[in-house]
Amino acid sequence: MIYFKNDYSEGAHPDILQALLETNLVQDEGYGDDQFCKEAADNIKRAMSYPDADIHFLSGGTQSNLLAISAFLRPHQAVISADTGHILVHEAGAIEATGHKVLSVPTTDGKLRPDDIRKVVLYHSDEHMVKPKMVYISQSTEVGSVYYKSDLQDLYAICQKFGLYLFMDGARLGSALCVKDQDLMLSDLPKFTDAFYIGGTKNGALLGEALVIVKDELKEDFRFHMKQKGALLAKGRLLGLQFRELFQNDLFFDLAKHANEMADLLRQGFQNAGYPFLSESPSNQIFPILPNSTIKKLQENYAFIVWGPVDDNHSAIRLVTSWATKEENIEKLLRNIRSPF
Amino acid sequence: MIYFKNDYSEGAHPDILQALLETNLVQDEGYGDDQFCKEAADNIKRAMSYPDADIHFLSGGTQSNLLAISAFLRPHQAVISADTGHILVHEAGAIEATGHKVLSVPTTDGKLRPDDIRKVVLYHSDEHMVKPKMVYISQSTEVGSVYYKSDLQDLYAICQKFGLYLFMDGARLGSALCVKDQDLMLSDLPKFTDAFYIGGTKNGALLGEALVIVKDELKEDFRFHMKQKGALLAKGRLLGLQFRELFQNDLFFDLAKHANEMADLLRQGFQNAGYPFLSESPSNQIFPILPNSTIKKLQENYAFIVWGPVDDNHSAIRLVTSWATKEENIEKLLRNIRSPF
Amino acid sequence: MIYFKNDYSEGAHPDILQALLETNLVQDEGYGDDQFCKEAADNIKRAMSYPDADIHFLSGGTQSNLLAISAFLRPHQAVISADTGHILVHEAGAIEATGHKVLSVPTTDGKLRPDDIRKVVLYHSDEHMVKPKMVYISQSTEVGSVYYKSDLQDLYAICQKFGLYLFMDGARLGSALCVKDQDLMLSDLPKFTDAFYIGGTKNGALLGEALVIVKDELKEDFRFHMKQKGALLAKGRLLGLQFRELFQNDLFFDLAKHANEMADLLRQGFQNAGYPFLSESPSNQIFPILPNSTIKKLQENYAFIVWGPVDDNHSAIRLVTSWATKEENIEKLLRNIRSPF
Amino acid sequence: MIYFKNDYSEGAHPDILQALLETNLVQDEGYGDDQFCKEAADNIKRAMSYPDADIHFLSGGTQSNLLAISAFLRPHQAVISADTGHILVHEAGAIEATGHKVLSVPTTDGKLRPDDIRKVVLYHSDEHMVKPKMVYISQSTEVGSVYYKSDLQDLYAICQKFGLYLFMDGARLGSALCVKDQDLMLSDLPKFTDAFYIGGTKNGALLGEALVIVKDELKEDFRFHMKQKGALLAKGRLLGLQFRELFQNDLFFDLAKHANEMADLLRQGFQNAGYPFLSESPSNQIFPILPNSTIKKLQENYAFIVWGPVDDNHSAIRLVTSWATKEENIEKLLRNIRSPF
Repeated sequence: MIYFKNDYSEGAHPDILQALLETNLVQDEGYGDDQFCKEAADNIKRAMSYPDADIHFLSGGTQSNLLAISAFLRPHQAVISADTGHILVHEAGAIEATGHKVLSVPTTDGKLRPDDIRKVVLYHSDEHMVKPKMVYISQSTEVGSVYYKSDLQDLYAICQKFGLYLFMDGARLGSALCVKDQDLMLSDLPKFTDAFYIGGTKNGALLGEALVIVKDELKEDFRFHMKQKGALLAKGRLLGLQFRELFQNDLFFDLAKHANEMADLLRQGFQNAGYPFLSESPSNQIFPILPNSTIKKLQENYAFIVWGPVDDNHSAIRLVTSWATKEENIEKLLRNIRSPF
Repeated sequence: MIYFKNDYSEGAHPDILQALLETNLVQDEGYGDDQFCKEAADNIKRAMSYPDADIHFLSGGTQSNLLAISAFLRPHQAVISADTGHILVHEAGAIEATGHKVLSVPTTDGKLRPDDIRKVVLYHSDEHMVKPKMVYISQSTEVGSVYYKSDLQDLYAICQKFGLYLFMDGARLGSALCVKDQDLMLSDLPKFTDAFYIGGTKNGALLGEALVIVKDELKEDFRFHMKQKGALLAKGRLLGLQFRELFQNDLFFDLAKHANEMADLLRQGFQNAGYPFLSESPSNQIFPILPNSTIKKLQENYAFIVWGPVDDNHSAIRLVTSWATKEENIEKLLRNIRSPF
Repeated sequence: MIYFKNDYSEGAHPDILQALLETNLVQDEGYGDDQFCKEAADNIKRAMSYPDADIHFLSGGTQSNLLAISAFLRPHQAVISADTGHILVHEAGAIEATGHKVLSVPTTDGKLRPDDIRKVVLYHSDEHMVKPKMVYISQSTEVGSVYYKSDLQDLYAICQKFGLYLFMDGARLGSALCVKDQDLMLSDLPKFTDAFYIGGTKNGALLGEALVIVKDELKEDFRFHMKQKGALLAKGRLLGLQFRELFQNDLFFDLAKHANEMADLLRQGFQNAGYPFLSESPSNQIFPILPNSTIKKLQENYAFIVWGPVDDNHSAIRLVTSWATKEENIEKLLRNIRSPF
Repeated sequence: MIYFKNDYSEGAHPDILQALLETNLVQDEGYGDDQFCKEAADNIKRAMSYPDADIHFLSGGTQSNLLAISAFLRPHQAVISADTGHILVHEAGAIEATGHKVLSVPTTDGKLRPDDIRKVVLYHSDEHMVKPKMVYISQSTEVGSVYYKSDLQDLYAICQKFGLYLFMDGARLGSALCVKDQDLMLSDLPKFTDAFYIGGTKNGALLGEALVIVKDELKEDFRFHMKQKGALLAKGRLLGLQFRELFQNDLFFDLAKHANEMADLLRQGFQNAGYPFLSESPSNQIFPILPNSTIKKLQENYAFIVWGPVDDNHSAIRLVTSWATKEENIEKLLRNIRSPF
């Protein structure tokens, strides 16, 4: 079975394992007060040319989302999300469990736009409704689309106007920043968001997300929130060390580029074979539409998600590539869709 | 600087790192549905001779405690804890953040006894107060004491009588089960608790606790709670693999025995040198009382926690050993306390 | 200014005030353990020919909704609501503040139907999403429509099939049960719901809703939840006494009938004058569509809510009648819409 | 049966009922936006000579406590309370249900002192523990003692020093302000607290507490919190009207003085008859110690709470007086304790 099911089907990039081996017996402080976390934070600050952020290392995406949202908002405040947003549907009510409503906005491509924000804010007019205070976006989105520089600038401007925090879920940030024609850079994120996180789990780490808090008023006491939600690992060094490696040279970007290149090959292959796509996705998730019979055949040798039916005889599938995807497996899959099995 | 500060100052036991290396590129399912988690659960079930439990792998102790308590209790129910209990003081209000009160019981040695439980239950008589429904104990306790077999049997009997769940925090379970004269075995835990967890972080893993749910009514839908609290790791295999190794042969117990032997050496050394102890602790944490001047001297070369003042000139310190503690470092420390520096 | 803004613009029905005067100096127990609450519960049980329910008296609708939902559900479970549902939009996130997600279903007339439920349940397939466990309906709905007997039977059947609780918000239950052609009776509610409440605030009481818990597994410890949410009034007798009066003879129904008759007059008057309606509403809220210029004129003498624009020149307004609405005020309003001011 | 069980055994003071009758058919806005709430707030501001406060009318003490605490604190912050504090024991975990820990301080007389606060603050030193941010006191306390002016000034000074909010539960504020030798006045409360509430339920109202928010940073968006916790009554006028009456002339203080005078008679009577007291209580709750046999006898004709055993043959009882207590009933009780029955 060959996996295109997600970008977390394997362990970690070998450089990361190597660093674990080399530092294993170094004695250091617990709970993220170690040298590795400090070095990792320094590396990230340098990579984004922004020294003035607070950086915290967390274990996963849902944990990062629920922590940021519950730490940043007061009880009556709500967060706005695209209807495809991870926090809206796929976190088992994690945000609501911290007491906050997620306000859903219908989108065609998974991306929020300024006018969406405006409508939600104007609709919530009095104390009988929650008060929108944060905008949540995913980069790349859950359907593979990405925000470009002007997209983010425009969103940030409307957030500023209405006094909303802009928070970016970067579980797949690497891929989003490395798609072709992307003019948004890591160094832009501190300028156009209030907080965001850099996903490690889906880009070569065993686990780990680096939460970057830019806005000063959101920084205070954040470690209390981490502890309270069970997110302060005794051996926090495990997270720090991995991000130190990812941002040592350009490993983080190199891994994302590989994932995108593999996705490009897949996309091109499906296009050449005449298959349409459910959505335009330039990042490491693609959504080709196939006959159900072909899907059934493919499932014998490949692991992937059937996204949903398109008509009685066709469905969209989701294929995901990663730092670990092998070109030979792409070729094998493309051969299988071109010629009958 | 030599660390006796805690049992999580290093990385992981080499066998665990080796297993990570060997399995790194194996492709498998996410979120704990992988082969490694299954093998780990099987190994643990075999080690405790109890196949009928549900086992979930979590990232840390606070996460395990807050998850178990919030998943098992209804909103008006409370958990009883010794006044030294980790959940009461050192989890930044993690339990209360899930909506539940922690009822504190004063103890002399960190251990709860049946009469403590009886008093709390009888005091809470009507709907103006919370309803006690769970007893939380730590094995070993936060002050190094341990529950022996009859201790646990007696506690479980009173819990059964009053309809309370008995939940054991086993962050340091390895050490507790391996102290001299311990007659309580891993296979006893499913008989005398409703749920407990086996600590990996403090006994050789990079991170990880194995939550064992024994009582049937507590098993349902537990993975929903994990997801909701941000505890379902995408690469859950990282946790499974480590517990597979710890319970492959007797690694878990071997590591705990080493930690205890190192603590025995320390304890014996301090006793021989004429130092008293704050408490009787047979496990891998000891609490000798030293002149403040000696403590100050020691701090130049050793990292440890000053537990608190005993009189104007003396304080207790906490020394913790682990799977990684080297005998030569013990000897060095003992030399320093025997002879003036 | 004449109020058609809501059904809580005045105080209480005179019979209720009279009973308060007569019983004022009677000494009795606090927190709802008094004779008046007992008599009220007996009267309600008799009125619905169902002695086996638990009845609790609460202060308002949002309090009743948040209490029932948070007491009945476990943390990962969610409640399904029509997109017009009070709990979804107009309770400032009260349900989410207790930790539960509200799943929104689009409707054309404010009423949920079995197929809506089926779709939501089938969509929520695994532990990455919340688990639907309750269906919330309002009787009458927020847009004035009502459930008839077969509507409720069908909903209850699908809830039974999927193991969902059916909970009815009866803030305006009186009006809903008294509309023309209504075949659903109070005595049907214990048969076709698991819990519901009878609204007093909007039908003649100073304040108060009577929560009726039918399903045995939902009854346990409910008073603990009431206390915990601040809903156990020291002088609970105030609530009991009012419901004793409302269900002494047929006061509750008589008041609702008056409200409906006044709404009928209004509806008929607007129809005769040639105005269309936003929705078909047989209960005590009606939604006629008027030219904006007419609305502006009316606002000089009448208080009501402008529901929203229908086109550039017309808007729907909401007119609400109550036990206290005077026929002469209806006539005055109808004269004003028939002839230019 | 004659009630000395509490100060909420009857309905409301006749003036309040009269005002309800007179205003019953006045039409006005819902949710506290009515003229009566405005007049009530004006009356209270005048009575405390402090126009710059926000005043909200709530239904009961537990509701007021949980609302203030959850609205004022961030998730990781905790509230300090005396071990007798109502929020600690007798609110069924209401505060914890909003996510906040209550830190208990042992006291001899129910009163917190500056040194208690200092110790708690200094103990909570890092992010592994909650962060104390509020001090909760009851005036009068749950054991009948009261804070005098210098007590409150000292507490407020230490709160200022450590950046803590000082919040006063005034469920029995009337009695506390009217005890003999009391030098603290209503007009002092805005000077020496950040927020407090004035209890109506236990001083002549059917229900109602007036929450006074003094500190500016605590005022914002409070009505959102009220709505979210189910505390915004549709007929909020019911609360406003009652406080308008209580603070129209000096009704609030007159009623409290009567309660205190009745308690004075009781206290004097028990003293004269040679009975000791559990605690020194100058307010409307007294705690005489009686032989168990006498208590048993009294229970045949009087309703009161047996507070707890003092030795094998004696127990303390709690007797509470109110605005409605009749002098003839005091005399009857005192006759019964002086002479054998």
